Amino acid sequence: MSASDRAINMDRVMKRIERLAEIGKISDTGVNRQAMTPLDRQAVELAGEWMKEAGMSVRLDEAGNLIGRLNSAAAPDAPVLMLGSHLDTQPYAGRFDGIIGVLGAIEAVQAFTDRGFRPLQPIEVVAFTDEEGCRFNKGLFGSRAMTGRLEQGELDRTDADGITRREALAGFGGDPNRLQEAEYAKGAIDCYLELHIEQGPVLESLGASCGLVTGISGPLWLTVDLYGFAGHAGSVPMAMRRDALAGAAQVITGFQAMVRAEAGTPVVGTVGTLQLFPGSRNIIPERVQFTVDLRDLDMERRDRLEEGLRKLVDDAAADNKLSYFIREDTNSPPRFCDESLMNAIRGEALSMGLKLPELMSGPFHDALALSYVCPYAMIFVRSKDGISHNPMEFSLEDDIGDGVELLYRTMKSLALANKGERSGG
Amino acid sequence: MSASDRAINMDRVMKRIERLAEIGKISDTGVNRQAMTPLDRQAVELAGEWMKEAGMSVRLDEAGNLIGRLNSAAAPDAPVLMLGSHLDTQPYAGRFDGIIGVLGAIEAVQAFTDRGFRPLQPIEVVAFTDEEGCRFNKGLFGSRAMTGRLEQGELDRTDADGITRREALAGFGGDPNRLQEAEYAKGAIDCYLELHIEQGPVLESLGASCGLVTGISGPLWLTVDLYGFAGHAGSVPMAMRRDALAGAAQVITGFQAMVRAEAGTPVVGTVGTLQLFPGSRNIIPERVQFTVDLRDLDMERRDRLEEGLRKLVDDAAADNKLSYFIREDTNSPPRFCDESLMNAIRGEALSMGLKLPELMSGPFHDALALSYVCPYAMIFVRSKDGISHNPMEFSLEDDIGDGVELLYRTMKSLALANKGERSGG
Repeated sequence: MSASDRAINMDRVMKRIERLAEIGKISDTGVNRQAMTPLDRQAVELAGEWMKEAGMSVRLDEAGNLIGRLNSAAAPDAPVLMLGSHLDTQPYAGRFDGIIGVLGAIEAVQAFTDRGFRPLQPIEVVAFTDEEGCRFNKGLFGSRAMTGRLEQGELDRTDADGITRREALAGFGGDPNRLQEAEYAKGAIDCYLELHIEQGPVLESLGASCGLVTGISGPLWLTVDLYGFAGHAGSVPMAMRRDALAGAAQVITGFQAMVRAEAGTPVVGTVGTLQLFPGSRNIIPERVQFTVDLRDLDMERRDRLEEGLRKLVDDAAADNKLSYFIREDTNSPPRFCDESLMNAIRGEALSMGLKLPELMSGPFHDALALSYVCPYAMIFVRSKDGISHNPMEFSLEDDIGDGVELLYRTMKSLALANKGERSGG
Repeated sequence: MSASDRAINMDRVMKRIERLAEIGKISDTGVNRQAMTPLDRQAVELAGEWMKEAGMSVRLDEAGNLIGRLNSAAAPDAPVLMLGSHLDTQPYAGRFDGIIGVLGAIEAVQAFTDRGFRPLQPIEVVAFTDEEGCRFNKGLFGSRAMTGRLEQGELDRTDADGITRREALAGFGGDPNRLQEAEYAKGAIDCYLELHIEQGPVLESLGASCGLVTGISGPLWLTVDLYGFAGHAGSVPMAMRRDALAGAAQVITGFQAMVRAEAGTPVVGTVGTLQLFPGSRNIIPERVQFTVDLRDLDMERRDRLEEGLRKLVDDAAADNKLSYFIREDTNSPPRFCDESLMNAIRGEALSMGLKLPELMSGPFHDALALSYVCPYAMIFVRSKDGISHNPMEFSLEDDIGDGVELLYRTMKSLALANKGERSGG
């Protein structure tokens, strides 16, 4: 839709995106603003000011989450309509990942209050702490704290400099000793909406500015070790070899073919790392280790593909006289978006004249943690060339504008709706 | 033959093998003493001391070759009778590869001088620099420098830490700026003898302690780079991927099948190294580099297989939307041993009562470089289970003793022969 038809103010949003990008700026377009650093704290303070401008009261919770709240005079204690994302970045990142979700939510609230609307339930905008997880090697910290999903030892994790998350959190303004107070009571969050860049090429290929997320796929992470026997590349006859890389190549080729054969489904399979030993051009590889990343919305299909992969490893080991070990590192089920929230978004997109393709999210987001305590939905904004976690990450102002407007309209319709009606929908 | 019938002293040889194995020792029986490292330098210094004990004068040439020389009073300027091998090892190696050739040659000279023999031509024992080629990905450095076969850019090659061969050579004691002075004048080397472990299973299967090499098969070394595009493993659909590792796996699988299909021939094909970038479990690999080692006695078949490999790369690039680059690092035709030197060795073996089967060498050796400037011959010593480039590499003391004695007797007969006679043979 044209910018003049929008309720939201994209000039303001773009100025804020640019202002935030100065905090931790690297190269021309890059940002390195890792979680719970002084730079992250600067970003949070700035966002807190903008929340106040939008009419919200602001607090930093025990887990370091920045929470802006728009009270509801009509139902001050009603479950909260929550919007959010994150402000922390990867070490070699762009200006949009997470950021547009927080700034877009603040803008949605500001457009709402500027027009004199008053919500029928409280609205909260959250900038969750440490979504990325790159500093302490485990992400979604703030959103898991809020939803009671932290695990033992989380505060003892250290960054590359040996600083514990406990120390970093205390320095950031949180309170590691009262972390459990960040958890919301059961039923306190009515629903959760998140706006985010796609970080993939689907919307671009479909020519759509925005998309509707149907769910966050469940990642299965495996590590495969193959054990053969080293020998001189010139003197061990082919029939006597136990070449671990020949076996690994056979598995990877078979795995790729198997996943690609599911064309038209959202399943994706990746071997992203491979190490071999001893790694000399004239020695037959004795050991190979590689990782497998398999994601799908359909657990039955994902289980079947995992079964197929395990058979590929077994066959390749037999063919190449190898032994092997498969370790499971992560195994999460997919989390689906709420149908009635998706319907609300579909309806608003229709009224805006927006094409709104539906797609799953391969990457996970704070919404994944929220999905365990309330219904959730997500809107994706087109990413140029599908690039993310890179300074080249880029989204058009007009695409972000469509996304923020869609978030605003959805929030407005939810915040003004009779709750009895929606829950019956 | 029994140890007491030998002129050479195997106690001394075995003690020296064990002493050298302490330099760069890994695990119980392994060695990691890569070329031009401080450990390699330690080994060279020790070998230099032993050369002096054997009556030789010692120098390190500009290419880092350690050269021990026994002068000939009778013919001080006559072409040299050269014996040698190397002291550097693969990163995950044993105690014998190269080592027995250097220590065996030193022992041969010592047995010769101890008995009061004086040669009719100078004898030189050489420990050639960087035979293995694993550190800078190209081997036979010292022997190619001596024979004028270095190529452009050799000194600019870097190891895994970014150290150039130029820097490594200077640190080792060579002189990269005067490298051409290491080259011997045409005709200065009369002939070359090398003792080496077989590194394969043939002698063991024939029940022979030693064998006579008839030639070295021609190695083709290629480096293949595949270029795709990185992306989030969760968000780029399979059909839109440009996964460089998927392409590499396809090439390796096809290449292995192609070479294995030539069962019953001596051709061998190996992919021994593979690196990928960026190497994160949830990022699609953007770049993969791997090496190919293909060896055969039959150049026509080897050319056909190379053609097949290039087609595999082309097809995999098309299937995975990759670009690629194939670099040829080494391309040697097979080099056959000198018939009159082989006859000399056959005669000595007969006098020792040794069974001496004849076989080709799949691995190449410094002899390959020497073959371009003088006649050469090689003696192989049986390898247990055909294992080499592995800490489990092993040869019996008695087998090495047969090999060193055979080397000594051949050297003696050549060094004491009327040159006019031999060249007419």
